[in-house]
Amino acid sequence: MGSDSDLPFLEPAIKVLEGFNLQVETRVLSAHRTPLKMVSFAREAEGKGLKVIIAGAGGSAHLPGMVASLTSLPVIGVPIQSKCLKGIDSLYSIVQMPAGIPVATVAINGGLNAGLLAAQILSTIQPELKIKISQYRKELHNQVIHKDKKLIELGASKYLEEM
Amino acid sequence: MGSDSDLPFLEPAIKVLEGFNLQVETRVLSAHRTPLKMVSFAREAEGKGLKVIIAGAGGSAHLPGMVASLTSLPVIGVPIQSKCLKGIDSLYSIVQMPAGIPVATVAINGGLNAGLLAAQILSTIQPELKIKISQYRKELHNQVIHKDKKLIELGASKYLEEM
Amino acid sequence: MGSDSDLPFLEPAIKVLEGFNLQVETRVLSAHRTPLKMVSFAREAEGKGLKVIIAGAGGSAHLPGMVASLTSLPVIGVPIQSKCLKGIDSLYSIVQMPAGIPVATVAINGGLNAGLLAAQILSTIQPELKIKISQYRKELHNQVIHKDKKLIELGASKYLEEM
Amino acid sequence: MGSDSDLPFLEPAIKVLEGFNLQVETRVLSAHRTPLKMVSFAREAEGKGLKVIIAGAGGSAHLPGMVASLTSLPVIGVPIQSKCLKGIDSLYSIVQMPAGIPVATVAINGGLNAGLLAAQILSTIQPELKIKISQYRKELHNQVIHKDKKLIELGASKYLEEM
Amino acid sequence: MGSDSDLPFLEPAIKVLEGFNLQVETRVLSAHRTPLKMVSFAREAEGKGLKVIIAGAGGSAHLPGMVASLTSLPVIGVPIQSKCLKGIDSLYSIVQMPAGIPVATVAINGGLNAGLLAAQILSTIQPELKIKISQYRKELHNQVIHKDKKLIELGASKYLEEM
Amino acid sequence: MGSDSDLPFLEPAIKVLEGFNLQVETRVLSAHRTPLKMVSFAREAEGKGLKVIIAGAGGSAHLPGMVASLTSLPVIGVPIQSKCLKGIDSLYSIVQMPAGIPVATVAINGGLNAGLLAAQILSTIQPELKIKISQYRKELHNQVIHKDKKLIELGASKYLEEM
Amino acid sequence: MGSDSDLPFLEPAIKVLEGFNLQVETRVLSAHRTPLKMVSFAREAEGKGLKVIIAGAGGSAHLPGMVASLTSLPVIGVPIQSKCLKGIDSLYSIVQMPAGIPVATVAINGGLNAGLLAAQILSTIQPELKIKISQYRKELHNQVIHKDKKLIELGASKYLEEM
Amino acid sequence: MGSDSDLPFLEPAIKVLEGFNLQVETRVLSAHRTPLKMVSFAREAEGKGLKVIIAGAGGSAHLPGMVASLTSLPVIGVPIQSKCLKGIDSLYSIVQMPAGIPVATVAINGGLNAGLLAAQILSTIQPELKIKISQYRKELHNQVIHKDKKLIELGASKYLEEM
Repeated sequence: MGSDSDLPFLEPAIKVLEGFNLQVETRVLSAHRTPLKMVSFAREAEGKGLKVIIAGAGGSAHLPGMVASLTSLPVIGVPIQSKCLKGIDSLYSIVQMPAGIPVATVAINGGLNAGLLAAQILSTIQPELKIKISQYRKELHNQVIHKDKKLIELGASKYLEEM
Repeated sequence: MGSDSDLPFLEPAIKVLEGFNLQVETRVLSAHRTPLKMVSFAREAEGKGLKVIIAGAGGSAHLPGMVASLTSLPVIGVPIQSKCLKGIDSLYSIVQMPAGIPVATVAINGGLNAGLLAAQILSTIQPELKIKISQYRKELHNQVIHKDKKLIELGASKYLEEM
Repeated sequence: MGSDSDLPFLEPAIKVLEGFNLQVETRVLSAHRTPLKMVSFAREAEGKGLKVIIAGAGGSAHLPGMVASLTSLPVIGVPIQSKCLKGIDSLYSIVQMPAGIPVATVAINGGLNAGLLAAQILSTIQPELKIKISQYRKELHNQVIHKDKKLIELGASKYLEEM
Repeated sequence: MGSDSDLPFLEPAIKVLEGFNLQVETRVLSAHRTPLKMVSFAREAEGKGLKVIIAGAGGSAHLPGMVASLTSLPVIGVPIQSKCLKGIDSLYSIVQMPAGIPVATVAINGGLNAGLLAAQILSTIQPELKIKISQYRKELHNQVIHKDKKLIELGASKYLEEM
Repeated sequence: MGSDSDLPFLEPAIKVLEGFNLQVETRVLSAHRTPLKMVSFAREAEGKGLKVIIAGAGGSAHLPGMVASLTSLPVIGVPIQSKCLKGIDSLYSIVQMPAGIPVATVAINGGLNAGLLAAQILSTIQPELKIKISQYRKELHNQVIHKDKKLIELGASKYLEEM
Repeated sequence: MGSDSDLPFLEPAIKVLEGFNLQVETRVLSAHRTPLKMVSFAREAEGKGLKVIIAGAGGSAHLPGMVASLTSLPVIGVPIQSKCLKGIDSLYSIVQMPAGIPVATVAINGGLNAGLLAAQILSTIQPELKIKISQYRKELHNQVIHKDKKLIELGASKYLEEM
Repeated sequence: MGSDSDLPFLEPAIKVLEGFNLQVETRVLSAHRTPLKMVSFAREAEGKGLKVIIAGAGGSAHLPGMVASLTSLPVIGVPIQSKCLKGIDSLYSIVQMPAGIPVATVAINGGLNAGLLAAQILSTIQPELKIKISQYRKELHNQVIHKDKKLIELGASKYLEEM
Repeated sequence: MGSDSDLPFLEPAIKVLEGFNLQVETRVLSAHRTPLKMVSFAREAEGKGLKVIIAGAGGSAHLPGMVASLTSLPVIGVPIQSKCLKGIDSLYSIVQMPAGIPVATVAINGGLNAGLLAAQILSTIQPELKIKISQYRKELHNQVIHKDKKLIELGASKYLEEM
């Protein structure tokens, strides 16, 4: 991530990946404040054995695109909300990459989905991951089914009171 | 893709993947006009041996997200420009997915990058792809270097005349 | 609705419809987390005797459009505010449907109007509903008239104090 | 419609409704240039036997909302593209109606969908319409299937050449 | 104004006009909830001796434009902030009027400026108003000069502490 | 106007005002390229007998606001379309004036309406103008009525062919 | 700055410049409320020995552009957030200057960067400033490195708890 | 510049600077396609004697910000229009830099102003440049004055014909 203020939005990625028993290296590296560190990190990433990189940043948000330009590992970009433009600046800066250097962009503040996407990518080499992802989705599915049942039972007014 | 009018924007993905000797299945499937076909396609994709899905669509652009909800293969979404909103509608509709179901979104009309991102994802299982991707990037790099040299030689005015 | 977090914005629809003595089935069904449930629900809706469907969702908001693609009942879409984009994403995703599959979109967070629109549609078969809708509008009208009178009497400053 | 310049965008509604053997009254009535005519039209619409009103307008686009405020028939609003703001102004003006007076809004320039939505609404009283709507959707479905087959046969490059 | 919730944003207009000894009629009239009242009000305004109309409204904000279409008095429109779109909807709906029917639009929540603009318009017939407007501006001017001096004296840090 | 490239968008104002037998002084004065000229013009405007000022500008569009800050005559601002931002920049820059200094803003490229608004303002001192404005509106009204009749007669398809 | 309400956003510029031992003159001058004062200030700035001007303003935000039109000193513009449009209005108004009169625009609320940019500009004549700027950047760099280390040590969950 | 397709928008900067007898080094260097070249260029810029850097780029537009992070020379950023988002993406990406690393941003496609701003910055060390800049501005001023006179002479209609 580009700043530790992005951590609350990226922690869900870390949690979900660790929940899948995947190893995560969590770093603060700024494209603008530590550009050479960022260059080294990105260039050495593949050699160190990293398989996918998740990069979150806000505002002009150059980190994901710059890392993507320096490695051919898949890079997932997470636009983090900015104070005034609410992350529209971050989103445009991350997703509108020029031809040749893609960044796999997820929703504004979409740390959790970045983690899941990384797991889906890794599942192409680690088939046992597929089962865990399916279980995760199953749980999401069941939560909705459970809420649906509860809503039918309670009716909208009571459901709202209990929320 | 959701409509054959998206084909000109997605063909670069097909070309680059075929250039890397990867097998591509190209389909027109509309989330809105052929929803059940789309459901079957997405659910059977993994069983058929597909590894990554690229889905392009414009306007309300539900195809990438719906496919992603029906498979745990990585899904890459390509927002296609719409007539009035110029693809902002497509972009928001594709990238702002809810927690649990990620779509790896690339730039508006970013078909080529969708292809490259697919190749980068596949290179985690096919290491020989890494070399091809590196060569591809090398070429991009060389084109810029070549233009830079030419610009230094010719100067801006002459360069512009020759463009 | 796509998530129970949408309920506070959709409850006004339920209330107004129940106030008109119409039967309402309230469900949580996610286009992304329970796609097959959503497909079954939409396909069976007409057979079960439903006449109009109100679908609310936020962010990429595929629920209204997907339901509309699976039934020819009129579908009313309610864009629910999202955290960063404030529902612009939801609005574009719901309203910008492709030719062939309309969604009748109301304002962001416009649950109440979705309910009223459903009642207006149903009044084409249930003429007694027309009277209830007229009474409802009469009341809205009278509230404005009442406020207008009070404002004329009190003047702006006093009126503001009492607000 | 508010101006005859909107006609090219609304004609598809007329055509599809006439194709379903429904009677259509096509009028030019401006909320701003003929406000009293518009008031009379809206107030007399129900008495004349109209069942649904489609109102298209561009820019500040007050026609759909004003008609909706003067009748309790369902009103479908079609935002027409404006020169500079490309219909975002029209869309916001039509969709963001206050609580109490809904307008069923379709996509920018979405005349065809306005016609289909009107037909779907009318099908609640005219069940034979349901068959026509299903046939219409079947055709859309078949067109996509046809294109899909052709694309599989020809491959992307040849398909593009023939477009 | 279209709703009494707009009053806090329009009261500054009332105050400034009353401060200039001008007569103000303050009304709540909704283009959508009391359309016929609004029509009567607008048509009778000139006959009653009104000289300028200030109309504030939020969301789809049809009030200023509809009043303008029904009178040839100058109409000043005040876009009031809406919950999600923050008044961009109101602004576009008020300012983007079609050729023939202008609305003099001021800033979002710009009630005070609406009052001042009304006074400037009235000063073309009431020259004594010009003096009051000049005094008002002089005061604004002096406040800035006063703050400027205070800032030079205190320096930024102390000034901030005292704010 | 700030540049002679704005003239095509402001000429309709000149024409309509001259059609009403009003005297018009047409000037090119740039807030940025001729700031002191602009200051003199604005400060001397009232003394020269001007009654209303129409100021059109594009992009950062400071002309209307600066003129308004230097005179207490009513100032009408016309946002002129810019190449990339299509006049959204001009609109925001003109309409979002701070408390104290209003600009009466019309639609993007709304030169004609600026002229009509000026005439409406002047009609408060020149009652004979009211008749001309009414006639102008009558004509607009009649054009719509004429088109409405023609459309009823010809039907949509023939009408479109003749457009 | 155009108003003392901008001071909290501009104070970081003052602090960083004073931290570099540069002399700062801090003024409140409004383009709209004190236009002639602003003109004098801008015209006399160079003669008084000023080298760079930082101008912050919100909403229609004419101050930076007007000052730039009246001096050929480099002018840095700081868009200040506005209540509803969040500074998008201020940004467009400041950055979209016409050809001939540039304003060096920084981020919304970017007071600190305005100060740093001023220092970078001044460092072209005061080489000793370069060292201070380098030290400042070094510190920024070290803060990131420090956070990175701490994050590696603590892990994400503990780091978050301590934030 | 990031791509030679940006050259038409940046050539005006080159021309104006060469017109002022300043030395210009024109380069194509892509933050994404030649990241290491870009890093070297930026790090060596000051040592080579460069005084100001103008960086233009479109879309995600990381070049200006990355160069700024690698040198403490003043960096001027020129957002270049993109196909769909028209340069809003480029503008946000360039201007919304984080605290610590400013980029002096000019208008979308504002190459000419970038050149003039560079000259204004350089004039702090080269006072003879001040005269050239004043002459340049004088000429702009005279062009407006000339157009103003011509417009007064010809009147709007004739002036338009001759345009």
